[in-house]
Amino acid sequence: MKAIKEIPVRYAETDKMGIVYHANYLLYFEDARTAFLEKLGYPYAKLEEKGYLSPVVSFQCDYGTSLTYGDVAKVLVWVSKCTPVKTVYSYEVYKGGQEIGVDKPCVTGSSVHCVVDKDDFKPVSMKRACPDLYQAYLDAVEPA
Amino acid sequence: MKAIKEIPVRYAETDKMGIVYHANYLLYFEDARTAFLEKLGYPYAKLEEKGYLSPVVSFQCDYGTSLTYGDVAKVLVWVSKCTPVKTVYSYEVYKGGQEIGVDKPCVTGSSVHCVVDKDDFKPVSMKRACPDLYQAYLDAVEPA
Amino acid sequence: MKAIKEIPVRYAETDKMGIVYHANYLLYFEDARTAFLEKLGYPYAKLEEKGYLSPVVSFQCDYGTSLTYGDVAKVLVWVSKCTPVKTVYSYEVYKGGQEIGVDKPCVTGSSVHCVVDKDDFKPVSMKRACPDLYQAYLDAVEPA
Amino acid sequence: MKAIKEIPVRYAETDKMGIVYHANYLLYFEDARTAFLEKLGYPYAKLEEKGYLSPVVSFQCDYGTSLTYGDVAKVLVWVSKCTPVKTVYSYEVYKGGQEIGVDKPCVTGSSVHCVVDKDDFKPVSMKRACPDLYQAYLDAVEPA
Repeated sequence: MKAIKEIPVRYAETDKMGIVYHANYLLYFEDARTAFLEKLGYPYAKLEEKGYLSPVVSFQCDYGTSLTYGDVAKVLVWVSKCTPVKTVYSYEVYKGGQEIGVDKPCVTGSSVHCVVDKDDFKPVSMKRACPDLYQAYLDAVEPA
Repeated sequence: MKAIKEIPVRYAETDKMGIVYHANYLLYFEDARTAFLEKLGYPYAKLEEKGYLSPVVSFQCDYGTSLTYGDVAKVLVWVSKCTPVKTVYSYEVYKGGQEIGVDKPCVTGSSVHCVVDKDDFKPVSMKRACPDLYQAYLDAVEPA
Repeated sequence: MKAIKEIPVRYAETDKMGIVYHANYLLYFEDARTAFLEKLGYPYAKLEEKGYLSPVVSFQCDYGTSLTYGDVAKVLVWVSKCTPVKTVYSYEVYKGGQEIGVDKPCVTGSSVHCVVDKDDFKPVSMKRACPDLYQAYLDAVEPA
Repeated sequence: MKAIKEIPVRYAETDKMGIVYHANYLLYFEDARTAFLEKLGYPYAKLEEKGYLSPVVSFQCDYGTSLTYGDVAKVLVWVSKCTPVKTVYSYEVYKGGQEIGVDKPCVTGSSVHCVVDKDDFKPVSMKRACPDLYQAYLDAVEPA
């Protein structure tokens, strides 16, 4: 399963080069994860209500063509790997006029997430702590 | 008492106009408040440790000359009014080469803050909850 | 004429109080202005193409009830005043479940904008530089 | 050559987990690069004055221990590789109390940068376009 999230670029997200400041793509990726989890039927808020958090363990991003104000970022997002202790998300960012999955994405990236107890930030096994989310992830995995 | 905080402008804080994005001055004002409270001998962390938070109640900002990457924002900050239920901070932003208190500031602003209980966000009297901070504020007040 | 823009709160936009950091409402207001100008038939990009920019001259914001991750900010936006040299925008932020224009808004604000030449940042008369935008504003004005 | 940049964490940079939002480390890295270039005697502004920009080509970041408001991020930064067409920066983030180069860093990362013409964003050879910066980089390189 893959999800697509369309995000209009904010003026505030550009920098004096006239393009989207590179760190802001991580915000777009977050929007995309939120959309993915909703499509999966397991909104992130549900995880927090159960007493867990899902911090980012690592991040990787490659920048090709730049986006700017007036553009709509179209982010393709999916889970490319999942184990009981980590989930890998993959992202491809396209812009208006581009065909998703056909044209070359402007920006690509991936992020690794774990699940921790919200009180002590200790990692937990997703398989034991949130078996329904874990199973949903497994069913949705598509390799990068 | 007034405090001065020097803040180099980040590239990320500019926008495609080539200048500091207007909302980012609020971050500079926060840096200035942090410096002010340290100079006052009552760092903000101390307030949170006692179980309180100090959210912003209102904000006002006037923009004149713009700053950009390469500039250092020099923020003059002071408490211009203080009652048991609200504190008013005033700000003047200068840039390199300008003389503080002599030249016309590039940006000016003010913000109103209250103190709330961190568990229920209910406003409390600073005079009763943190009498030492309240007294320190009163001693430091300088009208705008 | 008024416009409404719905903006899901980003995790990144919250702070350690657990609520939307106050400066981020200015980003929501920008999204709302973008939506307003589109509804008006004069997207902001058109202004820039003509060689002008529209920086913020001043800002004012009052915070009541806080929003957080999981909330959708519903921003009501309109032009409350317009002269050849300045435009005043007004904003009301509601959240999910609230009825716009009936319930008490969580956050309110206003901002003043001018139009400047993009090369020298000198203010211009909107009436002369962009008479169609000026007329559209006049037709759309609704006092605060 | 390595440089160290100390950056107090802003309240605005935390999120509702109570820690620094992951994307904000990229801003710290930028501050660190700025400090590095100043130490190198070639401030970034000089590059822009010559008609070039230095966008980020790719990014990678690993998160270990989290920082929060009240902490000072101490970023160790150096150039770990340099060719005429790309420069690799490496970063290690420590926090107060930690000994740089001895204790385990909280966050590590690296970024790849190129140099482009500011008018058409076409990549240029740093060796030809800014031979003094290129030589300074070569002299300063320390493998990761």
